[in-house]
Amino acid sequence: MHKPGTAGVVVQNIERADQTIIDGLAQCGVATVHEAQGRKGLLADYMTPIYPGARIAGSAVTILAPPCDNWMIHVAIEQLHPGDVLLLGTMAPSNAGYFGDLLATSAMHRGCKGLIIDAGVRDVKDLTEMGFPVWSKAVHAQGTIKETLGSVNVPVVCADGLVNPGDIVVADDDGVCIVRREEAASVLEKANAREANEGGKRARFEAGELGLDIYNMRERLAEKGLKYV
Amino acid sequence: MHKPGTAGVVVQNIERADQTIIDGLAQCGVATVHEAQGRKGLLADYMTPIYPGARIAGSAVTILAPPCDNWMIHVAIEQLHPGDVLLLGTMAPSNAGYFGDLLATSAMHRGCKGLIIDAGVRDVKDLTEMGFPVWSKAVHAQGTIKETLGSVNVPVVCADGLVNPGDIVVADDDGVCIVRREEAASVLEKANAREANEGGKRARFEAGELGLDIYNMRERLAEKGLKYV
Amino acid sequence: MHKPGTAGVVVQNIERADQTIIDGLAQCGVATVHEAQGRKGLLADYMTPIYPGARIAGSAVTILAPPCDNWMIHVAIEQLHPGDVLLLGTMAPSNAGYFGDLLATSAMHRGCKGLIIDAGVRDVKDLTEMGFPVWSKAVHAQGTIKETLGSVNVPVVCADGLVNPGDIVVADDDGVCIVRREEAASVLEKANAREANEGGKRARFEAGELGLDIYNMRERLAEKGLKYV
Amino acid sequence: MHKPGTAGVVVQNIERADQTIIDGLAQCGVATVHEAQGRKGLLADYMTPIYPGARIAGSAVTILAPPCDNWMIHVAIEQLHPGDVLLLGTMAPSNAGYFGDLLATSAMHRGCKGLIIDAGVRDVKDLTEMGFPVWSKAVHAQGTIKETLGSVNVPVVCADGLVNPGDIVVADDDGVCIVRREEAASVLEKANAREANEGGKRARFEAGELGLDIYNMRERLAEKGLKYV
Amino acid sequence: MHKPGTAGVVVQNIERADQTIIDGLAQCGVATVHEAQGRKGLLADYMTPIYPGARIAGSAVTILAPPCDNWMIHVAIEQLHPGDVLLLGTMAPSNAGYFGDLLATSAMHRGCKGLIIDAGVRDVKDLTEMGFPVWSKAVHAQGTIKETLGSVNVPVVCADGLVNPGDIVVADDDGVCIVRREEAASVLEKANAREANEGGKRARFEAGELGLDIYNMRERLAEKGLKYV
Amino acid sequence: MHKPGTAGVVVQNIERADQTIIDGLAQCGVATVHEAQGRKGLLADYMTPIYPGARIAGSAVTILAPPCDNWMIHVAIEQLHPGDVLLLGTMAPSNAGYFGDLLATSAMHRGCKGLIIDAGVRDVKDLTEMGFPVWSKAVHAQGTIKETLGSVNVPVVCADGLVNPGDIVVADDDGVCIVRREEAASVLEKANAREANEGGKRARFEAGELGLDIYNMRERLAEKGLKYV
Repeated sequence: MHKPGTAGVVVQNIERADQTIIDGLAQCGVATVHEAQGRKGLLADYMTPIYPGARIAGSAVTILAPPCDNWMIHVAIEQLHPGDVLLLGTMAPSNAGYFGDLLATSAMHRGCKGLIIDAGVRDVKDLTEMGFPVWSKAVHAQGTIKETLGSVNVPVVCADGLVNPGDIVVADDDGVCIVRREEAASVLEKANAREANEGGKRARFEAGELGLDIYNMRERLAEKGLKYV
Repeated sequence: MHKPGTAGVVVQNIERADQTIIDGLAQCGVATVHEAQGRKGLLADYMTPIYPGARIAGSAVTILAPPCDNWMIHVAIEQLHPGDVLLLGTMAPSNAGYFGDLLATSAMHRGCKGLIIDAGVRDVKDLTEMGFPVWSKAVHAQGTIKETLGSVNVPVVCADGLVNPGDIVVADDDGVCIVRREEAASVLEKANAREANEGGKRARFEAGELGLDIYNMRERLAEKGLKYV
Repeated sequence: MHKPGTAGVVVQNIERADQTIIDGLAQCGVATVHEAQGRKGLLADYMTPIYPGARIAGSAVTILAPPCDNWMIHVAIEQLHPGDVLLLGTMAPSNAGYFGDLLATSAMHRGCKGLIIDAGVRDVKDLTEMGFPVWSKAVHAQGTIKETLGSVNVPVVCADGLVNPGDIVVADDDGVCIVRREEAASVLEKANAREANEGGKRARFEAGELGLDIYNMRERLAEKGLKYV
Repeated sequence: MHKPGTAGVVVQNIERADQTIIDGLAQCGVATVHEAQGRKGLLADYMTPIYPGARIAGSAVTILAPPCDNWMIHVAIEQLHPGDVLLLGTMAPSNAGYFGDLLATSAMHRGCKGLIIDAGVRDVKDLTEMGFPVWSKAVHAQGTIKETLGSVNVPVVCADGLVNPGDIVVADDDGVCIVRREEAASVLEKANAREANEGGKRARFEAGELGLDIYNMRERLAEKGLKYV
Repeated sequence: MHKPGTAGVVVQNIERADQTIIDGLAQCGVATVHEAQGRKGLLADYMTPIYPGARIAGSAVTILAPPCDNWMIHVAIEQLHPGDVLLLGTMAPSNAGYFGDLLATSAMHRGCKGLIIDAGVRDVKDLTEMGFPVWSKAVHAQGTIKETLGSVNVPVVCADGLVNPGDIVVADDDGVCIVRREEAASVLEKANAREANEGGKRARFEAGELGLDIYNMRERLAEKGLKYV
Repeated sequence: MHKPGTAGVVVQNIERADQTIIDGLAQCGVATVHEAQGRKGLLADYMTPIYPGARIAGSAVTILAPPCDNWMIHVAIEQLHPGDVLLLGTMAPSNAGYFGDLLATSAMHRGCKGLIIDAGVRDVKDLTEMGFPVWSKAVHAQGTIKETLGSVNVPVVCADGLVNPGDIVVADDDGVCIVRREEAASVLEKANAREANEGGKRARFEAGELGLDIYNMRERLAEKGLKYV
């Protein structure tokens, strides 16, 4: 993994998007937000939720962590504002269990909405009961150490995506999508428009109309040479 | 992935097995059907259900789709008869999200029982709430395009299996098994016989008899040289 | 996979740890036990439970099985004492479905608490309904044969771990951890101490204290050169 | 893996394409043939050659083999004509070492040009010295047994592709491509045309012309909105 | 994959490091450069060379490409200066064969030293004979299309690393390492110092001294509790 | 990975097999030795050589190493006798680059024949030029630290195999096979017998006889029901 920025830095004041925008993005969900911003921002599909049904959005407090070393998570928790989401990328691949129920207790007390971690997590039964959602690369109890510095609130690469501190993280059962903070308002607008449009289409699909007709596909398919036999 | 047949063809009239046979196979489930037909027909074990508990069977309406292009699903939905199952193989590997809640709404209106897709699916929370089961290689929100023709109701390779249109798809928490349409009646017969036989054995196991005795294994194990120490 | 010991042997009398120790380890769970014994004993993170929520511990009745051949499971079931856990390693990699509902019925009748299998399992819907937990490498219906001898109650390599017969298997949603039988009492003691200690910390985290302060991290972080900007 | 056809059958007389066509396809290589037939027929990219530099084509003598059982290869070798290629798919995934130097000695004596195997191979140092090329999923010394029937010269699924006996296998450092026997002549014609066309383009590229100009891309890129800044 | 920046942009004037610095980094190689810059900058270990023995460095001309679409490579080639390295990241995962011998001919004419591609490459036999080195995720002949815009010379995520246009790419048999353009001079200085230091150590190792003594490890090992038995 | 034995121990005096036995096993190679000892002892097929053509055997000096920490290799090198092979297993999965040209220089000076490492290696170009063969899980330049104790010459799990110090490691292009020290003489005898037997068969295969006849397979195939059509 690549380390953008320098290890050993904690950026304390990051800009965050407006809370109503963040809440709006949460309501739209990953697939809609991803489409609304031109099909960008998705993290890799190996990032799976530890339990089904959660849907969150929040400002990213980013963590750049050494392999098998979770020290920086303690540092990052102090930087959390209510509504934030922790997001951790590593300096080299690791599936160790960086995060468990004690850290979740601490993060929840600060109002943290969840964790995105390109590594492992443990105590998933407890986390499920606490209702603290995590999207991770692995579930693994392997312990970590506290020896080497990383950074907090620097840009990080996480599961194939570049995430800046303060970017909006949207996560649900479909995975994780990142929205640039400065594009958040316009993305929400497009996502809402898309939702409205989809509502209308859903009614037509429910009534039995076909996508072939709703989207006027028949002519173009024929032009491309589709043959019915 | 290999394209048997030619791209750009929609076969409209396919033969289907008798509905009572299909329903019988659904009741037997994947493991029993797989065994009953001589341990053939299983798709790869990376095909997993988006939610647990579903058990379906239906005639395959097959889709051969280009990578990252879901156009042919719209074409295929028009070909669905009540009770059918959509099954999609790709012309090159893809984990993009070909299918979501709008397509599911449309497919359900036509009586479709579920989707088998050697690629990605999205809106899984909605699909779960709608009760539309999907077995897929990935959950991924990545959008697809509508640019290139594939085919509908031609033979396709899907998750290591060859599937002809009209073959019976059986799917449950154990995975997906394909039954040739022309063998369906005889497979059901053998599967039912197997179920009956297993019922008797289950009672003996419940009563505490050992497989070593139920199946008369002790002598053959001794002949092979098994030593108790 | 390596075969420690010779194929074709069933060891009938193995030593087991005290039941109260085993029950104590079950209560602590995988992450705590793993930490308590110096971060050793974890099996690979591809070993996942077929349903969430189970937490078990038991003495390992070990099975060394040929690829695609489940014969030795029948032999092993006869060796089960109430409270034991079946654990299967293979002589060469396999994802076939070695175990299903009939074998589970038999194992449950002998008081078996669950199965750890570095291969595939099937009938997972039935196993879930029966409440028989399995941690496996794969869910796959692929049938197995009964042709070649393996061994029972010899040391086996399972999912990157070495397991001796009578070692204690602890398994929950975080995975599987092995405790040497002869170390079980001392590991339980340390695990209980850790639990007590964590209880106190949890209360402090719930009250809003930070790990930075609870663990006195600030000074050492500063020494390492952490900079707040 | 799915078993098309019935196990236990050896088809002795298969049709083969004309040798001059096969030789022509060998000369074109995988990438060109794949393009010439409309981008179909490629096997999965995990099929890699055991040594670099080989480029072959030949009629497929297909083998459908049980997992970990290489018996059918002996049966298939008797069916080889000079210039043929052995191609093996399995009834369930296996990385065992089905093939080594003795079988290669036998196959070479019959004029076999190489092996495509969706499983493992061994003795690769000897095979390299003998100049017998193999494209395989794995290199693994794991021994196989001779217990269960498969079939020879039936359609098989191999590395995501469907292969009929007598189809032409083209293989080189880029992988493996299958050409339908009945399409071979027309595919060769298109491949040769493509080669000729590429030769002209290569000269222009060598002279420093850009693809942007050779293919007249600038206008269409501008229409799509490409901006130079 | 995440798209930093906007699709549809070609940045024409990028800053490049001094050629003597780039040449110096090439001579040091990946492992030394990675260490010299504090163990950052390595791309994922799945990036492997198509042939052994190449060692290059150059300024990155970056390409952000849609899945299965190689149009932007043609655009990027026009932006190459002698000594540059092409580096391609995708907007969604793809193993298609984006690059072959014609594009290599064109790139070599512009003085390009090689390609780093988080996707597939083809014509590897030709590329090897031409001496055009490529580090890729896959070798695959699968054709690509020219339909959708990406960008050239914007920041891209490639194989877990963030790469800015003009960053220095160092690649050899150990993989690929990225050096920030603005840090290149200081990294080279540290790398050269490291090389000099290693030269001295190599002589001592060759003379039979042990690392235990060269690095004075014995005391610290004893303090940690290492026991010789 | 499981840690058999306790961390922090170096066993100095291990028993080794007779050198003539070891040399004999080297000459037989992996596939023959694996067969001769009843198809056991193979390590996982992801263990690949960094260059083709090497064939070695030697007594294992085993290393149990923490993830991302290569300190114990320095300790192990002091324990090497001429003709030994270093073999490293990790306490948790790691693909970091534990070993490079300086350590190889030191190991070669002690007469070490090669390295088997269930982790990463770097400087592979130098190692190739030095003729120091390595079989590894990964090639990766990622640096390691020297912070945590492991052990030397204790039993380790490496790539799915259990290896005791002093066991014989046989490695070639087919992978790696472990022979128990106490079984080495009898395994060599069987391997030599097998070689002699194969020599005779090779001559018959070269003369054109078929395996069907050499092994008298035709009758048994017919009994199993094989049909020629």
